[in-house]
Amino acid sequence: MSSLSESQHDSYLCRVAIVGLGTVGRGVAEILWQHGKENNNAVQLAGILERNQENPNLADWVQRDQSLLYYSIEDLLTDPTIQVIVETVGGQTFARELIRKVLESGKDVVTANKDLMAVHGEELLAIAEKYGRQLLFEASVTGAIPVVRLLQDYFHVDDIEKVSGIFNGTSNYILTEMEQKQLSFEIALRQAQDLGFAEADPTNDIAGYDARYKLVILTYLITGIWLAPEQITLEGIEHLEPEDFVYASRMDRRIKLIGYLRREAQNLQAFVLPLMIPRGDAVAEIGGSTNTVSIQGRFSEEISMVGKGAGSLPTASALVADLEKISRGFRLYSHRLVKQYRLQPFEEYIFRHTLRITVKDKPGIVAQIGKVLAEHEINIYALEQLPQYHQKNGSHPVIFTITLEACQEALLRKALEKINKADFLLQPVSVLREIA
Amino acid sequence: MSSLSESQHDSYLCRVAIVGLGTVGRGVAEILWQHGKENNNAVQLAGILERNQENPNLADWVQRDQSLLYYSIEDLLTDPTIQVIVETVGGQTFARELIRKVLESGKDVVTANKDLMAVHGEELLAIAEKYGRQLLFEASVTGAIPVVRLLQDYFHVDDIEKVSGIFNGTSNYILTEMEQKQLSFEIALRQAQDLGFAEADPTNDIAGYDARYKLVILTYLITGIWLAPEQITLEGIEHLEPEDFVYASRMDRRIKLIGYLRREAQNLQAFVLPLMIPRGDAVAEIGGSTNTVSIQGRFSEEISMVGKGAGSLPTASALVADLEKISRGFRLYSHRLVKQYRLQPFEEYIFRHTLRITVKDKPGIVAQIGKVLAEHEINIYALEQLPQYHQKNGSHPVIFTITLEACQEALLRKALEKINKADFLLQPVSVLREIA
Repeated sequence: MSSLSESQHDSYLCRVAIVGLGTVGRGVAEILWQHGKENNNAVQLAGILERNQENPNLADWVQRDQSLLYYSIEDLLTDPTIQVIVETVGGQTFARELIRKVLESGKDVVTANKDLMAVHGEELLAIAEKYGRQLLFEASVTGAIPVVRLLQDYFHVDDIEKVSGIFNGTSNYILTEMEQKQLSFEIALRQAQDLGFAEADPTNDIAGYDARYKLVILTYLITGIWLAPEQITLEGIEHLEPEDFVYASRMDRRIKLIGYLRREAQNLQAFVLPLMIPRGDAVAEIGGSTNTVSIQGRFSEEISMVGKGAGSLPTASALVADLEKISRGFRLYSHRLVKQYRLQPFEEYIFRHTLRITVKDKPGIVAQIGKVLAEHEINIYALEQLPQYHQKNGSHPVIFTITLEACQEALLRKALEKINKADFLLQPVSVLREIA
Repeated sequence: MSSLSESQHDSYLCRVAIVGLGTVGRGVAEILWQHGKENNNAVQLAGILERNQENPNLADWVQRDQSLLYYSIEDLLTDPTIQVIVETVGGQTFARELIRKVLESGKDVVTANKDLMAVHGEELLAIAEKYGRQLLFEASVTGAIPVVRLLQDYFHVDDIEKVSGIFNGTSNYILTEMEQKQLSFEIALRQAQDLGFAEADPTNDIAGYDARYKLVILTYLITGIWLAPEQITLEGIEHLEPEDFVYASRMDRRIKLIGYLRREAQNLQAFVLPLMIPRGDAVAEIGGSTNTVSIQGRFSEEISMVGKGAGSLPTASALVADLEKISRGFRLYSHRLVKQYRLQPFEEYIFRHTLRITVKDKPGIVAQIGKVLAEHEINIYALEQLPQYHQKNGSHPVIFTITLEACQEALLRKALEKINKADFLLQPVSVLREIA
């Protein structure tokens, strides 16, 4: 192979300070430090600010290069040799204030803070535009999977008809364990916590908030519209029972927590819901803590991306990719926003619903439910009551499961209102959906 | 939802002419035409040149807008209102000359021509750089899967340790059919031809040349090095037999034609080979004509992308993405080339080999082969001779299959040299590999 001389390098030097030395901040520092050992790196680690002097990650950096350490935001903001701040503090109040100040001081910002971007992205991007600075947030959506970049720079976003996928690794890990090992939700969650896949307070992940923040950001990238998170219908995975997975398996389905955005003409459909997915569908086969994002284009057919959506280094690598983008002289590109949209009410969506019905056994229950469904002209697609299903003696609850033919959410709700009043129910009917 | 006014658009007008109105060229014309009906499109269809006036795709455009039609390259080159040429002529001689002339005339070029880029990419990119023009080729590798863009603009390519995947849809379709329907190669190929998945002369796809061209381009994007295609070890899929798939299935494997590039320090490993892949590995589950590319980063773990690698509109959508990139004022970014590499000789690679041995049955064959393997200190991992395996009477050939423990290719070759001399062989031993 021929020997090759060093080629010119047309990017400019980009000196970076990291604020917040938690899991992700430490990862960014490590990657930039490793890159620093190689030649020709436009992105340079130039500062670290961690307000908590007890943070154990600090000790490493005190040893490696004490001159990197900053002790106040003001020192960073007024240092003209720093061009970019990586915000890895997390949370909303302090981080929002920090990013605002950094942009106003004439520096660029790179962040992984999905909550903040989902709730205050519109405001912060406006500040960035006003000061001619950049605010990049690739790492805020599915970690190292480069979906933000692709939607910002690559796809003709007007051609995108659908974005969907598994946006949260913790809940996917729990769902995978529940299915494969027939665990209860509680045990799968505790196991995920023991292994470090779930936090002590797992609400953000298991109730779907995290996935919804990401969907808000994706919706912005595709439509130019910032939805408020609460506008997006949300259901988590806490209410799922082992029985749901057993039934899904017999229906040749898996259960996945899916973030979903669909555009049809002026209508937007958006939700985060646990869905039944036919096995063999690519997304059904994504197990463990892996994330996936699929983009359905008008012309490109479906493109899917799969990778780790979290973790110190995968998330940090996405932040570093944003830093490289800045170092390459990226020009802020305004969203080509020309359309107005109507967010369709959830009641208009059409699903194939599966009902898990837990009852005190007595004669006539199926007939009674069947009657209500028929009154609403909802057809039954499949029905199952296993003999002595999860019963140890006759007095235990009986669970049976009905899958309905596709119908509008509104129609199902009307029927459920009636069914849920029945005295034989031991708990309200639980609903699992499948895209029709 | 709030109503939103049209935001500023900071991209500049980019008037495009398409040369070659075949399957892909027609797709590009169609997409640009559709986009043209919407507001605010920076990329405009401004010309079509198809030298063959008998081309049936021309009729549509004569009807739609005759003013788009050009009749000579010179007219296009000298038209100052055209900024970019989309080359969808294919082939090497004419296309190479065309691209050179276009770049010299001060226009940018977008192409899907993988053969041309793999063989003459270095020369053509040098011409583009000399004239300060752009030569983009996203569509040349796996169609709508945006891997070229990601490697050029996004990933810190020095961090990439491995790129691998299924780069050819035709051969993957044939392999999937052979496996699922126990077809012979010939029948699966004919079926693919009937369905339009394979060309009348399928050599480029089934012998692996197409996948190898793509691997040459990926290697350049990651290392800055242009390998000659012939430097990359290549084996196609024509020699595979139904027996290979039956055995693979019993080993819980599938067979995929894999393009593979690995970098370890200064060493490069590169090949295109049919490989045994454990089921459950994401790449094993990619069936039909779908493509996939996986990128293994030092920090990002593995990211995989899946989508259609060919077809009129998917390929055209990648060309259009390049056009949009140009319209957004993309700056040519030289490869950050600082390293020298050594392309490791294939003999140094380590695989787990599976041998399909077709013999005239007689006593002592296993002992004889076992002895040769032992002399070379190659261990047997699994061995199988099914009773009356594919035999209709005693005189028919007997096939048995041996999977060896991982060893260097060189060692296997030495052993095979001996084994292939045995008089009981009805054909040379067939080898299938698996990454150890």
